[in-house]
Amino acid sequence: MHAVRSPLAPAGFPEMPPIAGLELRVARARYKDWDRADLTLALLDEGTAVAGVTTRSRCPSPEVEWCRKALVLGKARALVVNAGNANAFTGNRGRAAVEAIAARIAGHLACQPSDVFVASTGVIGVPLPIDRAEAGLDAAIAAPAAGWEEAAAAIATTDTFTKGATATAIVDGRTITITGIIKGSGMIAPDMATMLGFVFTDAAVDPAFLQAALDDANAQTFSCITVDGDTSTSDTVLAFATGKAGNRTLAETDDPGADAFRAALADVCRELAHLVVRDGEGASKFIRIDVTGAESDTSARRIAMSIANSPLVKTAIAGEDANWGRVVMAVGKAGEPAERDRLSISFGGIEVAREGLVVEGYDEAPVAAHLKGSEIDIGVDLGLDEGRATVWTCDLTHGYIEINADYRS
Amino acid sequence: MHAVRSPLAPAGFPEMPPIAGLELRVARARYKDWDRADLTLALLDEGTAVAGVTTRSRCPSPEVEWCRKALVLGKARALVVNAGNANAFTGNRGRAAVEAIAARIAGHLACQPSDVFVASTGVIGVPLPIDRAEAGLDAAIAAPAAGWEEAAAAIATTDTFTKGATATAIVDGRTITITGIIKGSGMIAPDMATMLGFVFTDAAVDPAFLQAALDDANAQTFSCITVDGDTSTSDTVLAFATGKAGNRTLAETDDPGADAFRAALADVCRELAHLVVRDGEGASKFIRIDVTGAESDTSARRIAMSIANSPLVKTAIAGEDANWGRVVMAVGKAGEPAERDRLSISFGGIEVAREGLVVEGYDEAPVAAHLKGSEIDIGVDLGLDEGRATVWTCDLTHGYIEINADYRS
Repeated sequence: MHAVRSPLAPAGFPEMPPIAGLELRVARARYKDWDRADLTLALLDEGTAVAGVTTRSRCPSPEVEWCRKALVLGKARALVVNAGNANAFTGNRGRAAVEAIAARIAGHLACQPSDVFVASTGVIGVPLPIDRAEAGLDAAIAAPAAGWEEAAAAIATTDTFTKGATATAIVDGRTITITGIIKGSGMIAPDMATMLGFVFTDAAVDPAFLQAALDDANAQTFSCITVDGDTSTSDTVLAFATGKAGNRTLAETDDPGADAFRAALADVCRELAHLVVRDGEGASKFIRIDVTGAESDTSARRIAMSIANSPLVKTAIAGEDANWGRVVMAVGKAGEPAERDRLSISFGGIEVAREGLVVEGYDEAPVAAHLKGSEIDIGVDLGLDEGRATVWTCDLTHGYIEINADYRS
Repeated sequence: MHAVRSPLAPAGFPEMPPIAGLELRVARARYKDWDRADLTLALLDEGTAVAGVTTRSRCPSPEVEWCRKALVLGKARALVVNAGNANAFTGNRGRAAVEAIAARIAGHLACQPSDVFVASTGVIGVPLPIDRAEAGLDAAIAAPAAGWEEAAAAIATTDTFTKGATATAIVDGRTITITGIIKGSGMIAPDMATMLGFVFTDAAVDPAFLQAALDDANAQTFSCITVDGDTSTSDTVLAFATGKAGNRTLAETDDPGADAFRAALADVCRELAHLVVRDGEGASKFIRIDVTGAESDTSARRIAMSIANSPLVKTAIAGEDANWGRVVMAVGKAGEPAERDRLSISFGGIEVAREGLVVEGYDEAPVAAHLKGSEIDIGVDLGLDEGRATVWTCDLTHGYIEINADYRS
């Protein structure tokens, strides 16, 4: 991890209770020449259900391909996370490394290799060294149990702080816990800052239900953040449910507690997603963008993402400039239904333009004061229909250029 | 114009001959508090054909809406370009300003208002002051003829150098000339660096043929450049043909000289497009991206633009880093057909990865030497089919952040 903590980082790592049926371990595989744990092993009791979402990249890593196949079976006994080497774009040797890891753990647990999930993050184009992975796995198997913060640190690469979130819900009369850790600092730099997120719960959940709940949470959270619009070859979010809480297994949307579970899962995912934005490369402002009045929710999200990914909007916020002209530009370029003369724009809840014109008697002072803060709200109302979306991003600063132009592969 | 010339600027403004049937004038409308000509008037003889392409923004300026309507008629007598005020997002008052300009010139020339084309660039959200426009027009009407470089300077805003290009072709036994000027420094900052391009020829060309030729040239040139992926509310390229060269009017694709005319028009458009990239905000490298082996030309162009717009690729080039992992990432995120294990990537013609793997015995030295230059070539072969495209962009540097984060609207 980097020495300089993001100015948007929370005060500290949250208190997070253990999850029954899960044990965490960390070890030093030395994927890079560094003195830190860089291999994380999560051991899961038999009967654990799993769901996942992976990158839409057409050039995914072998880990992503492996997870996609294994997810079809819906069950898991272990998760291995390698930090420092993404193992992406490494051909047959990369695939062989993933298979070797799964086989090693399957041998240890006497389970199927497909019960073992693998994710890697770091440098691209260098096959993951199998000997180091195997030595690291053996060390992890022999290691004492690790805490959440240790695991969150072991999966990190260029992150400037460790990231975790937790929530509880009442399901079938039992209190269940959902806890997650995540790493990521760009969205995403494939050679150094892939987003990997892992969520664990003690709830008993049918894999298909878990997948539907994760898809839904993902659509409102991880899919609604952007740092630089660059999508990784390795982005992966996995959710594991050990079933130790003792509730009757959640399987249908009208099961008791189904809504509470879904809401708690979405809360954890949202918090994890926000933490990634708060560690966005070079970020100095956390930006929330609300689009309302669009023709549909999908259209609203595309417009919100067009604003969130616009270098000109992001640099304006970095410069503390309420430059609504650039917001208009970003709405216009989204290619979605919009009518200039119905458009309204606000900063920090203060309307600056209404129906395609700057508001009469526009007073910049309160808007300028909002822009000086570190939490920026941009509102856009299209005045067309009921479609709405919220996305989160950060500003674009010299820090981003420094991190990415000065890095050598 | 800015005092510091782009390091990618050409040595000087080219020698460009006059076009028969066209007279240029410049004047000081004082749209901003500056001491320079900021209103350009091009007077065109009767019988001039016109064609144009405008922004795809869903929130275009009233000038763009005006030009689109006037283009349907295919004829032109004048062009007015205002610099310093984009007149975008200004409601009825913005529309009134455009109408007043067209009416003033129509009265002077005794032509239809629809024969007068108008384009504006500069600050957004402030209606163009009609009184200044009218005083400026009167001054321009009374002014002596201006040269190409004077006109290129008068349409500029944040550009760091004046931009022009010229070519000739033999059509129907006559030498015809095609000459253009352009302004733009981002692609595009709506409040300060909209792209406006104007091409003039003495060839006799039917408006429909001219439009088809311009559409075709645009698809290979202006539509294949990007500085920051931000599309302006005001982007406009207009082509005017005065017909004074005396050739039989070009109307069909098999007319004698039709191919020569189209090729010369595309040459001028390509050169103008390159000049805009060379003046890209903060640019220190001119980057050419060739994509081959794609499923179709459209697919190749989307992949090339995904690479050209990736902040991680652009910062890598700024850092002189042959970071092919980021190129893989950008290919993957384009959403177009791609197979990781068929992908080849080159820098400066030197293959660095082949069939999804770094080439054996990869020697970074010649690649690093290429990256130190100011003209960078990236090649991507998808190994799928015959689709190909070439696009041009610049790198992303601290200069871009400085220009855009430190600017106040």
